[in-house]
Amino acid sequence: MCGCLVESVPNVSEGRDRAAIEAIAAAVQEVPTVRLLDVQSDFDHHRTVFTLVGEPHGMAEAVLRLFAAALPRIDLRTHRGEHPRMGAVDVVPFVPVRGVTMADCVTLARQVGQEVWDRFRVPVYLYEEAASRPERRDLAAIRRGEFEGFAQKIQTEDWAPDFGERVLHPAAGATAIGAREFLIAFNVNLGTSDLRIAKAVAQAVRGSSGGLRYVKALGLALGERGIVQVSMNLTNYKKTPLARTLELVRGEAARYGVPVVGTEIVGLIPEEALYQAAAHYLSLEQFTPDLILEQRVDSAFKG
Amino acid sequence: MCGCLVESVPNVSEGRDRAAIEAIAAAVQEVPTVRLLDVQSDFDHHRTVFTLVGEPHGMAEAVLRLFAAALPRIDLRTHRGEHPRMGAVDVVPFVPVRGVTMADCVTLARQVGQEVWDRFRVPVYLYEEAASRPERRDLAAIRRGEFEGFAQKIQTEDWAPDFGERVLHPAAGATAIGAREFLIAFNVNLGTSDLRIAKAVAQAVRGSSGGLRYVKALGLALGERGIVQVSMNLTNYKKTPLARTLELVRGEAARYGVPVVGTEIVGLIPEEALYQAAAHYLSLEQFTPDLILEQRVDSAFKG
Repeated sequence: MCGCLVESVPNVSEGRDRAAIEAIAAAVQEVPTVRLLDVQSDFDHHRTVFTLVGEPHGMAEAVLRLFAAALPRIDLRTHRGEHPRMGAVDVVPFVPVRGVTMADCVTLARQVGQEVWDRFRVPVYLYEEAASRPERRDLAAIRRGEFEGFAQKIQTEDWAPDFGERVLHPAAGATAIGAREFLIAFNVNLGTSDLRIAKAVAQAVRGSSGGLRYVKALGLALGERGIVQVSMNLTNYKKTPLARTLELVRGEAARYGVPVVGTEIVGLIPEEALYQAAAHYLSLEQFTPDLILEQRVDSAFKG
Repeated sequence: MCGCLVESVPNVSEGRDRAAIEAIAAAVQEVPTVRLLDVQSDFDHHRTVFTLVGEPHGMAEAVLRLFAAALPRIDLRTHRGEHPRMGAVDVVPFVPVRGVTMADCVTLARQVGQEVWDRFRVPVYLYEEAASRPERRDLAAIRRGEFEGFAQKIQTEDWAPDFGERVLHPAAGATAIGAREFLIAFNVNLGTSDLRIAKAVAQAVRGSSGGLRYVKALGLALGERGIVQVSMNLTNYKKTPLARTLELVRGEAARYGVPVVGTEIVGLIPEEALYQAAAHYLSLEQFTPDLILEQRVDSAFKG
């Protein structure tokens, strides 16, 4: 092992059949250099999200084993769930974690995409950083029409797959495979029960409506607690950091006299994002990870 | 190796003779499970601070080798420096880093203290968390009188050493060996050239004059930059965290209309202290290190 680490978060269109989900989880765990960190199934979405981490070569193998285990167990012709989907294995992003560049992840996406077509005859679209053209960066644009509309869509001029022929797999549809930065799910709770305020703040901070470039946001009510939440995805925490995002939310909420009462991280957060936030708020003039005891210890024992 | 890590920061009364300092550094590096992270010599202080990290058993051996290398090279009878000292090896703290408790470090301090007397005939005083009585917690109280006054002090009722007889080593004096929390050196720069303000803020925030329990602070002028600094040691960042300390400094400075213009960490900082600060300022409702990607990855690959 080179110590290089990549994350992959395959989204599979099966969220109800325990035995099927466990069989898929078992398949990816056969690769010794890859670990399954998390499995989250949602009954209503009828979808399961697997979080894998490992060295790049092993990760390609693990994802192919996931396809091999998932495809015989899922038939989209009878699949109904709340979450949009076009494939049995719907989306597979690769994310750089340690000692791996975005370019490495793009290469990995292309290699796996080619193999998925060759071995399983599932057509593949490359998305985000791996996209072959600008209009395919956005996963939602690729998936529009979903499985039911895709038999037609795949035959249009604009939607030839990046790997494979213009024929949908009858039961497994098509798959989007891509490369992206680590996604941080960051929710900010506001001290009001007025949902309109959460929606207005979400609109102000999200990139699509004029806010921060790498923030997706929506306003939700937290019924039980009697408060509202600005629920966000930070799609590039290096360019749009947590601290700047929180302070913009705080400022927009203050415009209505509403305070931030708490926040939460859903899922995982890279240590670098926390270091960034600490350095920002502590006003550190010269912060480098080399100041961190554990990093120095690790490099001393490696070196 | 158990993966347990302890830090030790021996302070040696030699800051000028390159060859002597290098010989001492070479001696500690003979132990394979210990790494020398840093060596800082000060000519005026005539003192060198070695930062070691490693597993506890190896650390005891490394510190004993440091004594063996330092003692023949240092004679306090001819040593003159600005920093107070009572021993050739003046102070040896042990600090828990990973998988080690404070109680483990106290045990280590006692073991090494006994060996230092047995092998080298240097009397030893235990200090801070390892102290045998409350009035010996404070290193400054033990060292008062310094080498020159110690031949007398060691014979008084109150100052019998914890290990050894009431006789100072003729050239090497006595040594303080102890256990303490990791010390963070944290400086806050203020946007004024008025030294009185830095001194007033330092007095307000330090524990000894009524401020935060685990903060030592003094006011300094940063001549070159034309500003002043509150220079602090945080002796227990778990109980007196960075964020609370900075906000108290900010509030006290604001009383004079003076802003915080920047801060700095001198030396190293444990990752936990940065996570604490990030969680504080981000108002995270439920923060545990388990949310951090790298920690989850490490435990997945260990488990």
